Amino acid sequence: MPASANIPAIAQVHVSEHAKRTLDLVEEFVEKECIPADPLYLKQIGEGEQRWKSHPPILEELKAKARKLGLWNMFLPKNHFSQGAGFSNLEYGLMAEILGKSRVASEATNNSAPDTGNMEVLAKYGNEAQKKEWLTPLLEGEIRSAFLMTEPNIASSDATNIQLNIRREGNEYVLTGQKWWSSGAGDPRCKVYLVMGKSDPTNPNPYRQQSVIIVPAGTPGITVHRMMHVYGYDDAPHGHGHITFKNVRVPVSNLVLGEGRGFEIIQGRLGPGRIHHAMRAIGSAEKAVEWLIARINDERKTTFGKQLSSHGVILEWLARSRIEIDAARLTVLNAAMKIDQNDARSALKEIAEAKVFVPTITLAVIDRAIQAFGAAGISQDTPLSAMWANARTLRIVDGPDEVHLQQLAKRENKARKDELTAKLRWQSDRADQLLLANGFQAKAKM
Amino acid sequence: MPASANIPAIAQVHVSEHAKRTLDLVEEFVEKECIPADPLYLKQIGEGEQRWKSHPPILEELKAKARKLGLWNMFLPKNHFSQGAGFSNLEYGLMAEILGKSRVASEATNNSAPDTGNMEVLAKYGNEAQKKEWLTPLLEGEIRSAFLMTEPNIASSDATNIQLNIRREGNEYVLTGQKWWSSGAGDPRCKVYLVMGKSDPTNPNPYRQQSVIIVPAGTPGITVHRMMHVYGYDDAPHGHGHITFKNVRVPVSNLVLGEGRGFEIIQGRLGPGRIHHAMRAIGSAEKAVEWLIARINDERKTTFGKQLSSHGVILEWLARSRIEIDAARLTVLNAAMKIDQNDARSALKEIAEAKVFVPTITLAVIDRAIQAFGAAGISQDTPLSAMWANARTLRIVDGPDEVHLQQLAKRENKARKDELTAKLRWQSDRADQLLLANGFQAKAKM
Amino acid sequence: MPASANIPAIAQVHVSEHAKRTLDLVEEFVEKECIPADPLYLKQIGEGEQRWKSHPPILEELKAKARKLGLWNMFLPKNHFSQGAGFSNLEYGLMAEILGKSRVASEATNNSAPDTGNMEVLAKYGNEAQKKEWLTPLLEGEIRSAFLMTEPNIASSDATNIQLNIRREGNEYVLTGQKWWSSGAGDPRCKVYLVMGKSDPTNPNPYRQQSVIIVPAGTPGITVHRMMHVYGYDDAPHGHGHITFKNVRVPVSNLVLGEGRGFEIIQGRLGPGRIHHAMRAIGSAEKAVEWLIARINDERKTTFGKQLSSHGVILEWLARSRIEIDAARLTVLNAAMKIDQNDARSALKEIAEAKVFVPTITLAVIDRAIQAFGAAGISQDTPLSAMWANARTLRIVDGPDEVHLQQLAKRENKARKDELTAKLRWQSDRADQLLLANGFQAKAKM
Amino acid sequence: MPASANIPAIAQVHVSEHAKRTLDLVEEFVEKECIPADPLYLKQIGEGEQRWKSHPPILEELKAKARKLGLWNMFLPKNHFSQGAGFSNLEYGLMAEILGKSRVASEATNNSAPDTGNMEVLAKYGNEAQKKEWLTPLLEGEIRSAFLMTEPNIASSDATNIQLNIRREGNEYVLTGQKWWSSGAGDPRCKVYLVMGKSDPTNPNPYRQQSVIIVPAGTPGITVHRMMHVYGYDDAPHGHGHITFKNVRVPVSNLVLGEGRGFEIIQGRLGPGRIHHAMRAIGSAEKAVEWLIARINDERKTTFGKQLSSHGVILEWLARSRIEIDAARLTVLNAAMKIDQNDARSALKEIAEAKVFVPTITLAVIDRAIQAFGAAGISQDTPLSAMWANARTLRIVDGPDEVHLQQLAKRENKARKDELTAKLRWQSDRADQLLLANGFQAKAKM
Repeated sequence: MPASANIPAIAQVHVSEHAKRTLDLVEEFVEKECIPADPLYLKQIGEGEQRWKSHPPILEELKAKARKLGLWNMFLPKNHFSQGAGFSNLEYGLMAEILGKSRVASEATNNSAPDTGNMEVLAKYGNEAQKKEWLTPLLEGEIRSAFLMTEPNIASSDATNIQLNIRREGNEYVLTGQKWWSSGAGDPRCKVYLVMGKSDPTNPNPYRQQSVIIVPAGTPGITVHRMMHVYGYDDAPHGHGHITFKNVRVPVSNLVLGEGRGFEIIQGRLGPGRIHHAMRAIGSAEKAVEWLIARINDERKTTFGKQLSSHGVILEWLARSRIEIDAARLTVLNAAMKIDQNDARSALKEIAEAKVFVPTITLAVIDRAIQAFGAAGISQDTPLSAMWANARTLRIVDGPDEVHLQQLAKRENKARKDELTAKLRWQSDRADQLLLANGFQAKAKM
Repeated sequence: MPASANIPAIAQVHVSEHAKRTLDLVEEFVEKECIPADPLYLKQIGEGEQRWKSHPPILEELKAKARKLGLWNMFLPKNHFSQGAGFSNLEYGLMAEILGKSRVASEATNNSAPDTGNMEVLAKYGNEAQKKEWLTPLLEGEIRSAFLMTEPNIASSDATNIQLNIRREGNEYVLTGQKWWSSGAGDPRCKVYLVMGKSDPTNPNPYRQQSVIIVPAGTPGITVHRMMHVYGYDDAPHGHGHITFKNVRVPVSNLVLGEGRGFEIIQGRLGPGRIHHAMRAIGSAEKAVEWLIARINDERKTTFGKQLSSHGVILEWLARSRIEIDAARLTVLNAAMKIDQNDARSALKEIAEAKVFVPTITLAVIDRAIQAFGAAGISQDTPLSAMWANARTLRIVDGPDEVHLQQLAKRENKARKDELTAKLRWQSDRADQLLLANGFQAKAKM
Repeated sequence: MPASANIPAIAQVHVSEHAKRTLDLVEEFVEKECIPADPLYLKQIGEGEQRWKSHPPILEELKAKARKLGLWNMFLPKNHFSQGAGFSNLEYGLMAEILGKSRVASEATNNSAPDTGNMEVLAKYGNEAQKKEWLTPLLEGEIRSAFLMTEPNIASSDATNIQLNIRREGNEYVLTGQKWWSSGAGDPRCKVYLVMGKSDPTNPNPYRQQSVIIVPAGTPGITVHRMMHVYGYDDAPHGHGHITFKNVRVPVSNLVLGEGRGFEIIQGRLGPGRIHHAMRAIGSAEKAVEWLIARINDERKTTFGKQLSSHGVILEWLARSRIEIDAARLTVLNAAMKIDQNDARSALKEIAEAKVFVPTITLAVIDRAIQAFGAAGISQDTPLSAMWANARTLRIVDGPDEVHLQQLAKRENKARKDELTAKLRWQSDRADQLLLANGFQAKAKM
Repeated sequence: MPASANIPAIAQVHVSEHAKRTLDLVEEFVEKECIPADPLYLKQIGEGEQRWKSHPPILEELKAKARKLGLWNMFLPKNHFSQGAGFSNLEYGLMAEILGKSRVASEATNNSAPDTGNMEVLAKYGNEAQKKEWLTPLLEGEIRSAFLMTEPNIASSDATNIQLNIRREGNEYVLTGQKWWSSGAGDPRCKVYLVMGKSDPTNPNPYRQQSVIIVPAGTPGITVHRMMHVYGYDDAPHGHGHITFKNVRVPVSNLVLGEGRGFEIIQGRLGPGRIHHAMRAIGSAEKAVEWLIARINDERKTTFGKQLSSHGVILEWLARSRIEIDAARLTVLNAAMKIDQNDARSALKEIAEAKVFVPTITLAVIDRAIQAFGAAGISQDTPLSAMWANARTLRIVDGPDEVHLQQLAKRENKARKDELTAKLRWQSDRADQLLLANGFQAKAKM
């Protein structure tokens, strides 16, 4: 059954015929071209220092194929941008799920983070010169980029803590400080950083102290010290850099949108990106289910006289995984729909729901598949352990679960508490009236 | 914000303007009329034996109001029945959620189980005489009904185990056996039972041994022995009866659909009923959230110098509840949509997902609210403990979770195993080809 | 295998031969005399108002048998009290587990809450007159008692919130206020209340504002308004009273220990009581396992051609229950041992661990058994649903889980943070020295 | 507070004064010498191919120190072996917990897997020549060893599936087949394999088909193909080898114990080893708590105006971790005690409980610490992510959780079902007698 036939009933009406055809094309491209290429990609990266210098040739082959098929830049939503492939966030969400099943598919179709978010920033907030210099080659897949926000010495989950200093000197901004988890900074093709720092640290409004500025990757004063690991994986060549800035100078024209508007930029940037992350994660969960099913029907893997597929415990894993994945997908698609209807700002609740819910269930689903595979599951012989490690980062990147949960709750609590307190009090009083009017005592008061 | 403004983004397009207006009307009726009447209803039931003889007058008042407002029989979906109020399963689902917030609302609007399922059976499978005698007064809310399936001496989760004997003698069927958990059988207005039994116990097809037959409640030979309790609640006057049949005779014309077609009937009956149960349960979860919010902002309930609403742990409960409820609602609405598109049979997977997922999260949500209330939460002073007990039954009624999980998994495993095994093998072979063609070794084989 | 043969290996050395013999005697008494009497006890309570007036005769029969067997007042630990049966807290803990399997066993052996805690208070803090008047008949099982602490209008989990006013007028204290969840106050034999109230509300030390005072149950000004329910159970005749005090006068000699020493009293009272609750809960969990095993081997309860005992999912429930129960028992016995070694104050951590851990796992274990029984599990036909409701209260009584978790964490955090911070810093610095001395770079600093 | 002061109350009596002093010595050695040496050890391993050839010099320095302190071979329990340091399993368990806090400590004290299990096998089942050749150098820490059991093409969780062929030819055994997850086989000092294979594949008793045979590491026909990864970690130089045997010939004198006695050997080997794994895992959980506490009190890591240590959610993580760790430790110590009292065979239940319970809680505890650290937690900058990956393997090695849970349940079910069914039936009948004798009806029968 093609992917277009598997769209949840409630979402089908929101997917155009063109998007359905594209979705099936994405599926064919991913299953037939990308997934078989994943092992070659990993080999072509190489070993040791080489890992940070290589650009696997298979990727360029796949990019050429993808462009030919029209599978390019699908992530840029049609109602907010003109440069994309013309899909809604919901439609792209379905495609992103499928891209999430392969290591190389997102980049092969030029839909890979952090470039996607950076392209959105440049398309939305960049001036014409910035667009020409950086957006165009990014849209063409010629260069890659990084977004530098997280810092090691602070609690970055509260972005007001950011410390990298941006001070103006004449026609230049001078940057000093350090960043880490600069994802993508390891790639030799990463040519540009969008850097969030403090340009006005004493501004009484803590959300107006930050600016975002464009910094070419090779600018003097920049040192990439080392690459961070994720549960033993270095994620080369992409990688996650630990980078210092020592009096790094860029022209003032590199400022994006304006001084003090850093928060505005990152907030606009995160909404759709979270949808992308979430849908790719769902794709990895679906892939884990595929491997689980293949494993439990592997006739060589019989224990105690039974194939794994006849063990009730494992069937229950499969069923719970199905339920959780399908619920998670609906959650993300609903958030995407809400963005499509209006914008990310109006979908704060729905995006936060997807941000927290999806990684939780994805980790559970993949972990079940790993357990079904036993030792193979934790090894390099299945994609499962690497997928798990990647999903685990989603509980941390763009803010840990706990921050999102607190914000979600505070918003709901604030919005509803007065109304609800009044309503429940009115209902209680009204109930007492009815009781008294019918000859009963009023309720005991707590 | 009215209920119609809270419909999930992805579902809005599936709700007609008429349904939206009705939904808001339902909300107003439930919040203003039904919830304040719940305590009076409980009092009017009375104490001791009286509980099984009373018909709380407030209910008839509410029924009159509901009919006047046009809020009547909304459960019968428009594309399968002509006798209902003209809504889709998805539209009624949204209404059922709101009905689930009140003890009396479902019955006040003639949407209460098990009558709803029984009306569906009679409308779908009954002949004209049966419809006239039983469906009409049920549609009018003049009588109530019960569906007698579960038996005490067997594992009823496997319906082929059912033993109540139905044998033909001349123009009569003679029923002998026992049933329990006959919900609704306690109500003095319960006038009719639909009874599932074995008419052909030796039929080689275990799914053709059963028949469903209409039995008037007072037929000689029937004894209602006792009422089953649910965690201390007797659920009077509705109740759950333990009933014996001793040579109970009914005319052969009381048979529904035909001998041996019992399975066919119960399967058609269960799909939409599960959607109703699930959406009412979501309503109870939303109500628990309302009470939770009111509680944590209650200024009298300050601990260790802080209001409960500033305790991070409790805010996390609120946030997780919001995420889970919203995911569960989408799951049910998607299943309803699937039924609307075609029928319950085609929505087996989606219905099973809702059947298992919703009670799990509802129990968790209500339990958190109970914990926030402390001792009041487990007592009669809030609706929470009774709501919890009711939600707990949903993991058992219409088949325990475990049966549904096994079936869900087996269906998916059977449908996908060959295709997936072949696909993964093809991808693995293709990957090896690519590796070899590029000068690398093939992958190690597991 | 007798109970004495099932003592965890690590605890055996702590149980005297006498205690082992008594343990086996308790087991025989509970299994042969008490459990079979539970249904009769429930029947003898009666219906309606009668429930609060009856004293089931079977209980006095059992009490006579128990005393004859020497099974009386085992709860009073030998190293803190002289009036008990001469066992340690650990030894009694093992007995309490077995008592917890029957509704009537604790009372039949005069080990039932809240009398046990009240006897401890009177034995420890009461003067001779108070002991003579109240402790003696309690030790004899002639009367029962209640401890009145919780109040409806405040957050009682923070006991400094308590409001019932105790003011001195001449030789009398005058009490005004209200209490609820006064457990045991429903019993016609409940003759005395220990009441916690505020005698010095303006004392700057919030832990010196409270006093505990003895109030005879029938004192003028006292009204028992109603009994609180627990998930539909009224727990008659014991019950949980909602009681008002309107200028209730008692002689000043009824004060326990001294004005302002209420906190001191309740803290001494709670430690062993929590051990008792926890071990009885474990007994109920073991009983749930017994019923589970009986159920899954019930040959009448076959589903889909298999007995429940061959379903892997249900076997996993059994295994997890076994693991959790055994871990929980060790947790409680370790806390009991710690009290035995010194006192409850020195065992704060261990008691809190048992207080939180045991109800969590007990609820899970019982719920699994309920699910295995299906509809019977939630009904009055098994003891499971009532046991569950009782266990659920344990997450609330004597302080909700959340309060204990916060306190546990704050104590550990405060006690260890400086030392750990210094140690980890020292280790990090030392590691860098070693790296540098061996020609490597120092670690990157976070 | 020294480690000897932190022994659970219930276990103190089981720890000799000598063991307490040694425990404190272990603690000092681990905290002061080993943990600071962990980063150097990792650096000395090197990069690339070098990782499998190096033997970090720091390890030999630590071994020398440990021997001087008398911290050597503590794992060999005194009541089963004469070659060890003279401790019980329980006493060594407490030491193993502390060893588990460091990467190098177990090997530095010659207590590291799989050598420990191999030494037990050789000491228990080896003949004098075998002991002299292999046990002596292992006890001296001069060589290392591996146990080769798991195979890639079968479900190894059922050890009867093992296929590696052992056939006799004259005075030699000839081995053909493959093994993987041969832990320790990567170390250049690994000089000997104990190999489990099938010497009698057609034996009607599936537990008599296997033999264990000693194979020197360099024997012709052996190829170590590759090293398996664990979530991105290669665990060099130790490693987990994928090894083929092609007509590998060893003298018949290399057979251990006798043909067909492989199962007997592996079963004797696993019991204490599981205790060691479990206690080391608890040590890693305690270390995670240490890092968690240090992190949440790090003054640089303030979010939203509060230090992490004042966030209730994180305090709850700390408290739950404390409860779970302490319960898990008691579970393992109780199993160790049971082995000490008799042998591993009599402690099947207790060992299985520890085997399943400990990894579950260890993973949860470490994961909470990771989440508190955010990005640092998943990286190489804390030991947390590597500790997590290591703990995750414990749910798989020596049999997956699911196999142990099924066996645990089946044993309990089989042992108790008849007795329990009879008891509950007797109690039910007796209850009915009592009811009838007192004028009530007998209970309804399910």
